This record gives sequence, structure tokens and C-alpha cells, in this order.
Amino acid sequence: MQNTQFDTPEYLAKVDAWWRAANYISAAQMYLKDNPLLKKPLTANDVKAHPIGHWGTVPGQNFIYAHLNRAINKYDVDMFYIEGPGHGGQVMVSNSYLDHSYTDIYPDITQDEAGLKKLCKIFSFPGGIASHAAPETPGSIHEGGELGYALSHAFGAVLDNPNIIAAAVIGDGEAETGPLCAGWFGNTFINPVNDGAVLPILYLNGGKIHNPTILARKTDAELTQYFNGMGWEPIFVEVSDPAHSHAIMAQKLDEAIERILAIWQDARSRSADDATMPRWPVLVARIPKGWTGPKTWNGEPIEGGFRAHQVPIPTNSHDMSTADALEAWLRSYRPEELFDDNGRFLDKWREISPKGAKRMSVHPITNGGVAPKALVMPDWTKHALKIGTPGSHDAQDMIECGRLMADVITANPDNFRIFGPDETKSNRLNEVFKVTNRQWLGVRDAAYDEWIAPVGRVIDSQLSEHQAEGFLEGYVLTGRHGFFASYESFFRVVDSMITQHFKWLRKCKTHAPWRKDYPSLNLIATSTVFQQDHNGYTHQDPGLLTHLAEKKPEFVREYLPADANTLLAVMSEVLTSRDRINLIVSSKHLRPQFYSADEAKELVREGYKVIEWASTCHDGEPDVVIAAAGTEPNMEALAAVNLLHKQYPALKIRFINVVDILKLRHPSIDPRGLSDEAFDALFTKDKPVVFCFHGYENMVRDIFFPRHNHNVRIHGYRENGDITTPFDMRVLSEMDRFHVAKDAAQAVYGDKAADFANKMDETLQFHRSYIREHGTDIPEVAEWKWQPLVK
Amino acid sequence: MQNTQFDTPEYLAKVDAWWRAANYISAAQMYLKDNPLLKKPLTANDVKAHPIGHWGTVPGQNFIYAHLNRAINKYDVDMFYIEGPGHGGQVMVSNSYLDHSYTDIYPDITQDEAGLKKLCKIFSFPGGIASHAAPETPGSIHEGGELGYALSHAFGAVLDNPNIIAAAVIGDGEAETGPLCAGWFGNTFINPVNDGAVLPILYLNGGKIHNPTILARKTDAELTQYFNGMGWEPIFVEVSDPAHSHAIMAQKLDEAIERILAIWQDARSRSADDATMPRWPVLVARIPKGWTGPKTWNGEPIEGGFRAHQVPIPTNSHDMSTADALEAWLRSYRPEELFDDNGRFLDKWREISPKGAKRMSVHPITNGGVAPKALVMPDWTKHALKIGTPGSHDAQDMIECGRLMADVITANPDNFRIFGPDETKSNRLNEVFKVTNRQWLGVRDAAYDEWIAPVGRVIDSQLSEHQAEGFLEGYVLTGRHGFFASYESFFRVVDSMITQHFKWLRKCKTHAPWRKDYPSLNLIATSTVFQQDHNGYTHQDPGLLTHLAEKKPEFVREYLPADANTLLAVMSEVLTSRDRINLIVSSKHLRPQFYSADEAKELVREGYKVIEWASTCHDGEPDVVIAAAGTEPNMEALAAVNLLHKQYPALKIRFINVVDILKLRHPSIDPRGLSDEAFDALFTKDKPVVFCFHGYENMVRDIFFPRHNHNVRIHGYRENGDITTPFDMRVLSEMDRFHVAKDAAQAVYGDKAADFANKMDETLQFHRSYIREHGTDIPEVAEWKWQPLVK
Repeated sequence: MQNTQFDTPEYLAKVDAWWRAANYISAAQMYLKDNPLLKKPLTANDVKAHPIGHWGTVPGQNFIYAHLNRAINKYDVDMFYIEGPGHGGQVMVSNSYLDHSYTDIYPDITQDEAGLKKLCKIFSFPGGIASHAAPETPGSIHEGGELGYALSHAFGAVLDNPNIIAAAVIGDGEAETGPLCAGWFGNTFINPVNDGAVLPILYLNGGKIHNPTILARKTDAELTQYFNGMGWEPIFVEVSDPAHSHAIMAQKLDEAIERILAIWQDARSRSADDATMPRWPVLVARIPKGWTGPKTWNGEPIEGGFRAHQVPIPTNSHDMSTADALEAWLRSYRPEELFDDNGRFLDKWREISPKGAKRMSVHPITNGGVAPKALVMPDWTKHALKIGTPGSHDAQDMIECGRLMADVITANPDNFRIFGPDETKSNRLNEVFKVTNRQWLGVRDAAYDEWIAPVGRVIDSQLSEHQAEGFLEGYVLTGRHGFFASYESFFRVVDSMITQHFKWLRKCKTHAPWRKDYPSLNLIATSTVFQQDHNGYTHQDPGLLTHLAEKKPEFVREYLPADANTLLAVMSEVLTSRDRINLIVSSKHLRPQFYSADEAKELVREGYKVIEWASTCHDGEPDVVIAAAGTEPNMEALAAVNLLHKQYPALKIRFINVVDILKLRHPSIDPRGLSDEAFDALFTKDKPVVFCFHGYENMVRDIFFPRHNHNVRIHGYRENGDITTPFDMRVLSEMDRFHVAKDAAQAVYGDKAADFANKMDETLQFHRSYIREHGTDIPEVAEWKWQPLVK
Repeated sequence: MQNTQFDTPEYLAKVDAWWRAANYISAAQMYLKDNPLLKKPLTANDVKAHPIGHWGTVPGQNFIYAHLNRAINKYDVDMFYIEGPGHGGQVMVSNSYLDHSYTDIYPDITQDEAGLKKLCKIFSFPGGIASHAAPETPGSIHEGGELGYALSHAFGAVLDNPNIIAAAVIGDGEAETGPLCAGWFGNTFINPVNDGAVLPILYLNGGKIHNPTILARKTDAELTQYFNGMGWEPIFVEVSDPAHSHAIMAQKLDEAIERILAIWQDARSRSADDATMPRWPVLVARIPKGWTGPKTWNGEPIEGGFRAHQVPIPTNSHDMSTADALEAWLRSYRPEELFDDNGRFLDKWREISPKGAKRMSVHPITNGGVAPKALVMPDWTKHALKIGTPGSHDAQDMIECGRLMADVITANPDNFRIFGPDETKSNRLNEVFKVTNRQWLGVRDAAYDEWIAPVGRVIDSQLSEHQAEGFLEGYVLTGRHGFFASYESFFRVVDSMITQHFKWLRKCKTHAPWRKDYPSLNLIATSTVFQQDHNGYTHQDPGLLTHLAEKKPEFVREYLPADANTLLAVMSEVLTSRDRINLIVSSKHLRPQFYSADEAKELVREGYKVIEWASTCHDGEPDVVIAAAGTEPNMEALAAVNLLHKQYPALKIRFINVVDILKLRHPSIDPRGLSDEAFDALFTKDKPVVFCFHGYENMVRDIFFPRHNHNVRIHGYRENGDITTPFDMRVLSEMDRFHVAKDAAQAVYGDKAADFANKMDETLQFHRSYIREHGTDIPEVAEWKWQPLVK
């Protein structure tokens, strides 16, 4: 492949010109609001009042970007760019301006002096361009800001995209985060036949905000060991003198690309089922921070260290005393050689841009995916459970869910995946392994392994919520479908990742309407708070419900299906939804089944339902409303209805099961929320409401705050976990039938309920002593079945 | 050191007996509720109804624990044990029972058959022993459950404990998590002179819950590279036949200990200031999962793979068909050789236990610390700002905080530390570097580095919130003091870590009253939501406030100091507090200063204060209450008071600044909460309240829900971030003076406020167009100073 047109000094000179142009624009974006081509000497009117931006990471990334363009041309490969470094927003903007896509997407940023002026002015400016890769940045599927997920996103994106290379630039700051350190092990899961490739480019520029970086201070020998140990093959590139750098970079990048192509060629001569884990290349690039900018300032080194992180020269419109240095720096890129008199980037340089959709800025994978397909959703009712008398049969909701998911896998063989941290079986999705395996390219051991193979639709063999969440994000952001199932409490490990994904979705709608929509991010939280026992208190945290409820309601749904049919109906809804984060809280344990397929459909369609068979009030106002959201809350609330009805046959109870909890919010807070009229019709304006809730109680208080009826007694999670039985866990939070029944009776009858309340208290005391003795629940609880109500 | 008494076959036979005893108890804990010595054949009455527990990790850990005991004796070192694997709660319990400390702490668990019976019965039993190392476990400072923090905790614990070795066992599942992968780089920060040592023991048992592990499937050569690359020296130990394993393990562990001692001796012959990063040993232990348990079951391999994870043989009191296998397994440990007829562990085996406080189960570091000292808190008022006319001078709160923290460092040279993810300077704590440095043992480069040295009280040179939080947790759990300062939004990265620390604190009080208390975990969230500009939307998330408010109120405080004096008063309070998680939300930007030292003291003591100089109502009921919590809310609310007072001189305004936000909660929710009487006296029962809040608005709704007054209009964060000015960021959430003033006027005057409302709207429109043009705020905002009220 050597001595092609792409290796000539002439071609590399074009790459250099492209790079200089990107650097020039990037620097100008920080400082200039006018005179963007420096046709005149720099004046205060040309300079921003508050130059702002992160320079340090930019020139090295521009260098990488220019060379990736060259490699795309030389090898005719499909690549896209992941900007791992948290800032340097100029990089993808300036490069997409040079390849014209920025103007295609934002026509007011014209390819002339006026456009360039505007491009400079609006950078980090109110209403303008973000200081990091963002949803509005062409070619990005990965937002800067919070660090750590560049590799996970890249891996998720290339799954089932066998011809795509994700060029994932990783800053040496990001490389110190936990999620990124774990991200390297993603190579264990990439099938070189069916999946694409991730080319990590570890950008060692030496400095973070104010510190050296750990990896940059290691020797090449140490880094070689680090990467070899994790199964990667490092290719080192070290540059410092721009004049001599292009040939070096071209050669090293060629080596990396050729290695990937060779891996593909070799692997693809065999079946995907026979694939093994290749030693993928990682480019370790020692490129000075703030390269080509000022070498020093005030006697301190800028280039090559942390001081290059942000704005290196303090020029601003109010203080032009240093403007000469700024102007000299800008002119060092020789803008007059790069742009014509009208400010248009010269064709002789632009011609090295990849063409059309080969440009990383507009590659289809970065905007909705390569030929994305809608999910084929099989009819869930095929798996619906026959209910008969509600509560008469038990089942495991997640087992039933697994049956439906097996159908989904079969119907969507190359665009649906399940991710998790070693919990797919623990979360009882076993049935999926009848039609697929866990994808794992590491060493196998047939004597021990179960459902482990080089090809499979489940990726759950790394114990890392970060990796599972990042894989799923990368997968859905490139137009495919899936879910991440995890223990409820440990979803909190990725609180911030979920937040950042929500922010991406929101900004796409508000700031990048040109973006196509995405399949939803589906999160199944199971092994939940009210079923924990021996795992105990550390495994209890239902707070993802409140966490996500704080986000913009348009992008969030929270489902609390109380049984298998409802869960199946929910899954059918969420897997075909778009542009949302769907949290599904589900039980995996054996639980009574209550709702028919028709009821489940209505519960999901409407979000809630008055359950007539569990109510004793069929017209007029009830004496008490008992509402429940969640599997155990529903079960305990129904058991409480039994207790109440037996004691008070005349008591008019309305029972409501709530699945789509956020729908109960006021329309002023959630546009989907129930009107006051509808809410009052359900909960009345003043009758006592007893609300059994799976999560923290503040969320229900928040729901009721803007409503007429404040007469609500909430039974949710109260942080009283312990080593005990699942039922006792509910007792500790007073989210059990006896506390609920007592509370409802007292709400209606006040002091007159004293006898009943005493009976409940006595039962609870008996329960406490019984479980300490027997370790199991009292027979009344263990053997409870729903008692149909006497009409 | 060879051929000592500790290396004889006789001694190793004792180690073997200890190990067998620990294994025997550990297995019995899962299954037995009676007949704990198997004096009689096993019957259904002896067996639990639901045997439960995690066997897989146990025997290997017991093996390690027994050998650590031997090493403590042989080398007379001080060690403690970190149980990284998420389960295997029997390990530290059974070993502390064998060394008698369990009985010392829990006298009802006697050293006889009755005690042993109880020890078995209560394992994973209601009210009993946790299935992982927990606060109630002797010798633990690290809870199982959520994985990833074993190394960070260990490093934090050994800082400033120069004679302590933390034996940190890391499961090969945990080793796949992000935080643990980043944890290895903690070796960059340990000074071999002033600090102790962490001996990581990577326990490669081959299986997780249902998967192989990534590292166990790598070769020794690969693992050597991985660890060498990160600066560690691996020592491999591989065992499979128990009979031949003790000599191997003893030799390898000796090698590791001797290496640590040699490193210490060498480094300590020089000054701590001359220390460099040693190549610390890591023990890589290939020990079969479920070792010594059943080899196979139903034709599938148990020992050595994931199937050993939990209970390997399905015997239970209802199905004794497999009891023979269980009994044979239990008897394989030869309990009759280990315990006397009364069930007492034989002295001839027990004698190999380390003595007194050398036992890992009661080492002082694991219960409050080695000679812990209360923090010497300098008088903060020395740094108090003179206020004069409120708002007339600007200052940076975090800069002022840094001055006080420098004093704290000077006054507490060996028991106070600051942690962070490369943000200490960005968070404007610069002043501390006048008295200390960043501790960093990596390669230094004087040309570039700033305040980097082998000795320093700041550790912030790894960009990892997990590492910073984990270090601080380890540090305070061993009795020392400090704080972790970070960008507000990225605190969410460690949401779950903070939760788990809270759970530890709570369980210590409810389940382990024998534990000493701890210095508080102090978290300074700065670079906050309403001051973000070019960093933009990804850097906005004030939700840690709501997240922590869901936890038990006894253990959580949330402070929102609005200026420097208040911040200093808060820091003085939190640094000397115990057993709490203190969240301090603070500004780092130049902001007007409002509160005198006396006012600040009252604000922190009482949690809130009616600010008379900002109120126009000095007796009787106000027309409107304006409350503010947070720096920018306080500033905007005061500016709104100016606007309102100018327009409506007769309007009776009460202005309240709130610092300790949780104190506003109802006593039914927070025992410290204001009574209804006190709340009504502040906020009235029905007058309009305009509440300017730093966080999500649901928290304020929740505060007001149980109160009489629901007439509250909340201006908090509404997820409308963008690239814009800090003031405009507030406008986007309507948490700015103009929206606030308009809302207050409309609340009081209704339609009659239309003219004023229009004026506010016009100003906002002018603002919107002005910032798009100029990039800076309108002069009215930029030049605003508090206007003292006309009496």
C-alpha cells in the first residue's frame, strides 16, 4: 500500500494545510468576533470581551482528524470520530466547516468571510457553539463534558456494524477515570466478523486542568505492558516538530488501519462462530498539549503541559496589550495560504476531504445509524398468562419477560441486544438463552461455561454497569434497539450516565432538529428494594425513580408493572418507543399474578386503572382510595383490601393500580399529566388516600402537592433495610398489608378503628417474633391468596 | 527469615486446621440451624428451611485470611483486611469467631456448641448476620454489596498510617468494574515513608455470578504485563490441592510482605520528600471458586467456576434427599479434630491467632482509627470579610475558603487531607498551596509541574471522582478528617458511593453500637448549576441535593452558603462534626458579599435567618415572603427585592436566607425540622412565598407539602441549560431577579401588577437580544449592586 498518492510529500502538504486551517479556525473561535481572516491588523473591535475555550486538546485532535481523513481516502474505509476529551469543541466544528458539512447543516455559517466571522463569534457565546462535542456538533454521537465513556460508546456503536471503524480519541485525563479504565476490556466482546472495530487513539498530551497525567508520565515500555496485558497492541506515535510529523503520523495510522483490515480479512475467512479475540491496535499518540500555540507565556511553559488547557494568551477587547502575540500566533498558520479573498477554504486543500457520506461529520452512523430498522415487535399476548381468579397463580415476571425477549431476538437478529453486568440469569431472563448466547471472544472453557460463544445477542460478561450502560447508549445512538437489565440499587452507579444521555436527547430536540430520532434507552431495574433478603441493605435503593423524575418529562417514562402480563405489555410499548429513557421496575421473584392481558393493556395505555374486582365502591365517592405502584406495593395493598373488607364489609374502597407513575403528575409539571378533573375523579378531592409506592415517599408527596387532595398517607421505602425476609423488609418500611390496612382504617374511622389497629399491631408483633424463630414469614402471609370480595 | 517457627510443617498444619475450621463454620452457617458440630447424623431438624449464602468466594478468602494471620505473626506487622468480594459474609465472621473477638464483641455468640449453633442459625437470617462484610462485621471498614471501591478505600486508610498494611482482597468480578480498574493507579499517591502500604490480593477464582471472569482467563504473562504497566509487581500464587498449598501460599505471601518491608526500609532511610514510587507487590492468587466444596453436582462442575457462587448443594429441611452429600462435605473438614466436646475451638489451633490488637478483626484502624485525633479547628473569623454595606464588595467564596483550609492544614499536619479529581485549583482552593503540595509519587517534571511533590495534603492528580471519594471514605473511616471538592454535576458520578457510605453510618448506629464514631464525610460541590457558562449543559446538575435528602435525616446535612463568611462558618461546623455526610454547595466565582460574620454564625447555627436589612416588613405579617437558598438564588432574590421595593415602596417583604435547607422540613420527616409554629412564623400560613432555590423544584414542594402554607412559587433549576452567560442560565430557569420580582408582584397584586410584569418582560426581552449581540449581560445586571432599602 506504500507510495500511493496519499503518501507523497504533496499530499502530506495538503494534510498540513488542512490541519493549519483547522487550527487557525479553532484558535480564532476562542478570540475573534470580527476580522476572521486577519486581512487587517488586529484591533480591539475584532477581539471578544471574554475569550473562552479549551485550546490544549485542539491542535492534537485536529492533527488526528486530518490524518483520519487521509486514511479514509487511502483505504476507502468507513470511519467516525468520537471526541473523548471533555472540551475542545472547536475540533469537530472546524473540521466539518472545512469539509463543508457544517454549512450544509447550518446554512447561515457560509463558506466565506461572513460565515467564518459568525463561526468565530458564536463559539462559546450565548446561544452559540458548545465548548465540547455536543448533539449540535456534526458527526458526534458522544458528548464531551462528563468523562469516561468514549470507549463504551464506541464499542456499542460498532456492534453489528461490521464495516465501521470508530476512531475513539481518549484524553489522558479521561484515561484515568474508572469507566474508561474498564472500557478497555470491551475488546473481549467484539466479534471481528459481525462487528466493526474500535480504534482507540490515546492522546497523551501530558496535562489535565492543573496536573500532569498519570499515563503520559509512564514510559512507552510501561504503556506497552499495560495494553498488551489487556490484549491490545499499542502503536506509538510521538510528534513535536510539525514539519516532520505528518509522515510519522501517516505511517503509524496506516499501520493501525492495515492491522484492523488484516484482522477483518483473516477473521472473515471463517465463520463468525469461530472467531477469537484479535489483538486490536491502539494508537498511543504523544502529541504536545496546545501544540503550535504559544510555547511559553510569562516565563512558564504553555505548550506541552497543563497551562495550555484553556486560553493561553490573555488578550481581550479590554486589554490589547498582548495582542501582538495573539496575532503572531494566528498568523503562524498562514491563513492567507488557506482561504481565498472571500474567505473560502481553497479547493486545493479541501479536495482531500472524504466525499459525501464518507465524511466523518456526516457519516450515517452518527445521525440515526447505518440503515436503521424499526424493531419488529412480536405480539406479546402470545405469552400472556391466563389469570382466572386474580392472584390464584404465581409466576416470575422476569421469566415470562424472557420468553417474549427470545421472540424479539429471533425477529430482530442483527439490531437488538441485551446488556448487563453479569446478571442476565440472576435477573431471570434465562429464556433468551434458548435462542442466543452471551457474546464473548475471550478464552472459553467448555467444562465451565454456560451459553458463552463468539456470537450472541447478550453481552453481560463484564461486571460493570458503566460498560453495560455505555454499550447500550452507543447501540441506540446508532439506531439499534435493546435494554440494560440490572439490580435496581446498582443502577445508581450510572445515575450520571443516564442523566447525560437524557441531556443528549433533549438537546437534539431543542438544538439539533436536523438529527433523526433514536430508539429509546430501556432500563430494567430488577432485584428490587422490597424483595431483597440475604443481599440486604446495600442492595436497596429505589431512588432512580426520583432521580429520573427530575428530568424533562418529555424524555422520561417510569413503569411499575405489578405482574407478568403488565410487564409484557410495558416491554412491547417501550421497545418500540423513540427518544425516551424508559425505566421499568420489575420483580424477578415468584409472585401472584393479578391482571389479565386486557387489563394489562389498559394499564399501560392509560397508565393506571381503577380495579373493579378489588374495589368495594363501584359508584359514588369511596370512603378510602387505596393506590399501589409496584409489584410488592400492589400485592400488599391488595392484601390490605382483604383485611379491611373482612373487618369492614361496608367500607367503600376504591383500588387503583398505577403503572405509569409520572402520569399522575400535574400538567403544569408534566405535559402528559392528568388534569385536575381526572385526578380528582380518581383520588377524590378530600377522601383519605393510602398510597403504596415502590420508591421514596417524597415522590408521591410531590405528585400530590399541586392537587386538591392532600389527605394522602404514603407507604414507600424508608431506608430501614436489614437482613431479613422480603416480607419483613416491607414491614420495616411499613409498606406491608398490616400497616397499610391499619392506616386506611384509622384514616376512615379514626379512634373507632382502635380494635382493628390493635389487631394489626398484634399480628405484626407475632410476625416479628415468628421470623426470628423460624426465619420464614407467618403462615398468614406465606399462604396468602387474594380473597375475591363479597359483593 | 526462612526456617523460622512459622515455616515448619507443624506450623503450617495449624494454619491448615484454622482454615478447615473457618471453612467448616462458613459452610455450616449456610445450612445448619442445629447440630453444628455434627455430633449426630444430620437430620431435617438440623437444616435450615432456606439455606442461603455465597460459598464461592469463601474458602479462598479463608485461606488468605489464615495465611495473613501467619504473616502478621512472622513479621510482627500491623495489618487489616478488606473484603472486596461482594459476598462471602462468613469469612470475616468465622475468622473473628476463631480468634475470639466475635465473642468479645457479641457475648451471646459463645465459644461452645450453643454459640456455634447460634452463629450458624443467624447467618443470613432475619435480624442476623449479613451475607457480606458489613458494619457489624468485626474488622471491616469496607462493606460488600456494591463493588469497585476496595482499593480506593484501602489507599485512603493507609494514608498517614505508615506502619499499616491493608490486605485488600479483590474479587475477579470486582476487578472488572471501572472504579476498581482506576483504583490500581492509587499507587501513584502513596508515599512509602509517611504512608502505609496496600497489598492487593487479586483473587482469581474464575467465575462471577454466571460468567467466567475476564482476568482469570488471561495468562500469567498477560497479567504480569497489565500490572507491570501500572507499576505493580505481581507475585503469582496458584493452588488447587489443599495438601500442598500452604507451603506455596506461605512462601508467596512472605515474598510480598518482605517486599513491602524492604520498600519501607529503603525509602525510610531517606526523607519523605525524596521518596519515589516503589514497585509495590500485588498478589495474584489463582484459587478455585468454591474450593474444598463439592467438585461437581448433577454432572456439572462446581469447584472452580461460576456454579460455586452461591449454595452448591440443594439440601434443605424440606428436602433431605441430598443430605448425605452435604454431610460428607461438612465432615471433610474433620470438625472433631478442630473443636472440643463442648464445641470450643482447640487452643492448639487458636494459638496461631495474632494477639490482642494485632488481630485483624479488632485492629484499631478498623474501629475509629489508630490513635485518632479530633480536628484542631482554627477560628474562621480571622478570615471573615468585612461587609459594610451588604453587597458592596465582591469576593470569591472558595478563595476565601482556601485561606481557612490552609490554616486547617497547618494545624493538622498529619490527619487532614483534601481530595479531588484534578480540580483543586479550578475550584479556587489555591491558597492551600501556600502551605502544602499535591502528593504525587510519579515521575515529576519541574519544567511543567505546579505544586507537585512526594509529600502533600492535597491528592487530586487522578481525574476520577471514584478514586477521590473512595480515598476520602477510607480516610474518614479510619478516624481522620478531610473533604472532597468537585464540580457539582460530576458528584453524581459517585451518587451510589455516597449512598453506601450513608448506609454504613446508619448501620453502625443501629446494628453496631460498639463502633466508635467517624469524622464526617464532607463534600464541597462547586462550579455549580447557575454559574455555568461555556461548560454548558453537561456541567449542570444540582440533584445531589434531592438525592441525599432521601436518606435518613440524622446522617445528612445540606448547606447552601450564599457568600464567603457563611461558607467559612459552614466549614468550621462541618469539619468538626461527626457521623454525617455534609454536602456544601458553594460558589467559586466573584460574587457580592452580603452577610457579616455574626449573621453567618447565626445562619449556620439556626440554619436560616430573616434578613432585616433586606426586608420591608419588620413586624406583623408580610405581604410576601421571599426566601433564597444558594449563592445565585440569594443574589437574584435580593435583586428582586430591590426591583419590588422601587416599584412598590409600601409592599411588606420578608426576606429569608436559608443555609441549612433540610431544617425547613417537617419534624415528621426530619427530627431536626422546624415545628409548624416556627415554620408558620417564618413563612406565614397563607401569604405568598417566592422561594429561590439552587436545586430541583420538587425538593421545595416536598418541604412545603406537610405545611399549612401551600401558596409557594418556586424558582429552581428547570433543566434548561445552554451555552450562555451565567445570568442567562438563571433566566432560562426563570430563577433570575426579573422573573422572581414579576412572580412576587403578581402573587400579591394579581392583575394589578400587569404594568410591572410587562416591564419585567420587556427587560428580559432586552436581555435576550443584548446577550446575543454582546455576549455579556445587560448593564443593569452586570453593574447591579444591592440598593439599601429606604426605611
